[in-house]
Amino acid sequence: MNAIRSSSEDHSDLANANRIEAIQRKLVMSGLDGFVHYQSSRAKENVTIPYLTGVRGLEDSGVIIPASSEPVLLVKDFEESRAKRQSSLADVRGVTTLPVERAMASIGEVFKEKGLAGKRIGIDESELTVEVYNKLLSLGVTMVPFATELISMRMVKTAAEAKKIREAAEIAGAAIEKVRSLVSEGLEERELAAEASNLMQRSGEASFVSVQFGPNASFPHHRGDSTRVRGDGLLVVDLGANVEGYNSDITRTLYVGSPSERHRKIPDSIKLAVSDAIEKVRPGVPVKEVALAARRVIRNSGLPQPRHRIGHGIGLNVHEKPIVEEGFEYVLQAGNVIAIEPGTYLDGDTGCRIEVDLLVTESGAELLDPKSLPLL
Amino acid sequence: MNAIRSSSEDHSDLANANRIEAIQRKLVMSGLDGFVHYQSSRAKENVTIPYLTGVRGLEDSGVIIPASSEPVLLVKDFEESRAKRQSSLADVRGVTTLPVERAMASIGEVFKEKGLAGKRIGIDESELTVEVYNKLLSLGVTMVPFATELISMRMVKTAAEAKKIREAAEIAGAAIEKVRSLVSEGLEERELAAEASNLMQRSGEASFVSVQFGPNASFPHHRGDSTRVRGDGLLVVDLGANVEGYNSDITRTLYVGSPSERHRKIPDSIKLAVSDAIEKVRPGVPVKEVALAARRVIRNSGLPQPRHRIGHGIGLNVHEKPIVEEGFEYVLQAGNVIAIEPGTYLDGDTGCRIEVDLLVTESGAELLDPKSLPLL
Repeated sequence: MNAIRSSSEDHSDLANANRIEAIQRKLVMSGLDGFVHYQSSRAKENVTIPYLTGVRGLEDSGVIIPASSEPVLLVKDFEESRAKRQSSLADVRGVTTLPVERAMASIGEVFKEKGLAGKRIGIDESELTVEVYNKLLSLGVTMVPFATELISMRMVKTAAEAKKIREAAEIAGAAIEKVRSLVSEGLEERELAAEASNLMQRSGEASFVSVQFGPNASFPHHRGDSTRVRGDGLLVVDLGANVEGYNSDITRTLYVGSPSERHRKIPDSIKLAVSDAIEKVRPGVPVKEVALAARRVIRNSGLPQPRHRIGHGIGLNVHEKPIVEEGFEYVLQAGNVIAIEPGTYLDGDTGCRIEVDLLVTESGAELLDPKSLPLL
Repeated sequence: MNAIRSSSEDHSDLANANRIEAIQRKLVMSGLDGFVHYQSSRAKENVTIPYLTGVRGLEDSGVIIPASSEPVLLVKDFEESRAKRQSSLADVRGVTTLPVERAMASIGEVFKEKGLAGKRIGIDESELTVEVYNKLLSLGVTMVPFATELISMRMVKTAAEAKKIREAAEIAGAAIEKVRSLVSEGLEERELAAEASNLMQRSGEASFVSVQFGPNASFPHHRGDSTRVRGDGLLVVDLGANVEGYNSDITRTLYVGSPSERHRKIPDSIKLAVSDAIEKVRPGVPVKEVALAARRVIRNSGLPQPRHRIGHGIGLNVHEKPIVEEGFEYVLQAGNVIAIEPGTYLDGDTGCRIEVDLLVTESGAELLDPKSLPLL
């Protein structure tokens, strides 16, 4: 759980304790006197507070980062002892947070203490709710969007963050192998999903599991149901584990029984799409080139293009920036972690998707999927 | 997944298809011309769109409810076919949603089509982000907080909603019995959690599992770890299942081995706190009376009061309104579903919590926990 404090193996200049300093530099450069965030529920995928403090799963909590003094984490008094143990910030204060007006009063006191009253304060507008925004407004500060700066930092992973995603990918790979080993038993999709989830939970956290067999695989958002994985067809297994907040997102398409020759050929094409995309990945390459490399193979195979994007960043969220697709202007840099997931879907017939997780390195890309996990 | 459309067994006047009509009446009464919401991520606990449309897990999607014409659900084109199958709204449109400006353009077109351009529009400020708010502002509408109205509706469950929570409670109860049956095997906390989670996933969805043994139980937010459940002590098992979006939240404290007499007495007191609180639950009773009944028993036992609230609503969120605690003014009404969870925590020594789920009925309360599940 201690996502930020354990800085020893982290050699990035944004590592851990340095993250706050980097934000403070960006605040100063943006003409801001501080930053504030408050989240009023324990929403699982809210990441601002975990990113800034290393503490996950806090309900009703806020963080204040003055541009030139120590940051403060406010948590509900009930969670104070855990937050103190886990936070990378030294100043953790348990306060009354319900109703939300009580929490706002505490934020107002910190604003005064830190000389932020009436000042210009950055916010993460991509996560802050309008409700909290309106209540912060009444504290007399001027709020300025700052999400772009945070997201640009989050896109470049530190070595410690990449290590967690690598571990999560190892766990996800083991779960796919577990499904492969169980396929002969004729279980239901949801039973296979439960087995995969169980395995992931024993070594980390299961983030999500999707198991789609035969025609179900043609609907990329099908959730595993009571369909039996039996007979002949393609089985798409898409799953992710979570290690200390950081996600993996891996998909494999497996043969069940003896799929028709037409069906058997599809995964070979998608595998080639993955390989061609991986070859493009290195610092300085626009994301659209990676996506186009995959789409070129799909087009040349005569298969329908997926309507979903070819890839996306992974980190504290399963899907985050950069989006890897035509129409998005991002240029890859060392430290990005992206999932590449070309697929093809023949409505009501079959579907196939292969997804790998990549760390962009100085010289190219490191495949984070476990080495023992074949692409098919 | 079809949370709203299956209206046959629902006799509440807010049921299913009627939900939109109820919202439209509230819009008119509030002097508003419509309602809009847009969520830009697949955040698991965002509930506005599932509540209004019956479709869960949509990424980048929006809903527009004119006060006097048909509502529209906008989803990313990739998710259109699933959304059309699952939505309780007839008008579902697949659109390009990335970048978010494209989605906003589509919302602007619907505003024009429905005569909402330049009008006063309600928003769910408790979920809408500042980022989306700012982009909607540029469409020229005036946005007015409307979350209180939605939340007041959500607090009163329809029969169909209560049925889902009851099913989720049955599944959670079975998972607690599974843990009880495995206690003799000396597994790790996280192994017990994985077994409970596996069982829940086979019949619904596991929402969360927390397994805390011995001194770990004294930290209510401890997550199950590699601690072996072996020897003598109290074991707190807190878990919830999810059925079609609706959650249960049940806790039991089990004896492992032969706890000391001092430890053995604690769950008896907490059990009495639960019973006394349940006796208070009926329409017309202020929530604080329920909380005070539980706290009175804890005080009289000489045990420390829990620093967390005694209870909370359950529904699409595991924790939602009404909060059941002193200082909150809500008066119970038929259709509320609440969890009552008194506990006591002796730092580093032991802890105990018992949590039950209750449906407030016309005459009192229905315990949603499975009848076969003992309180201890």
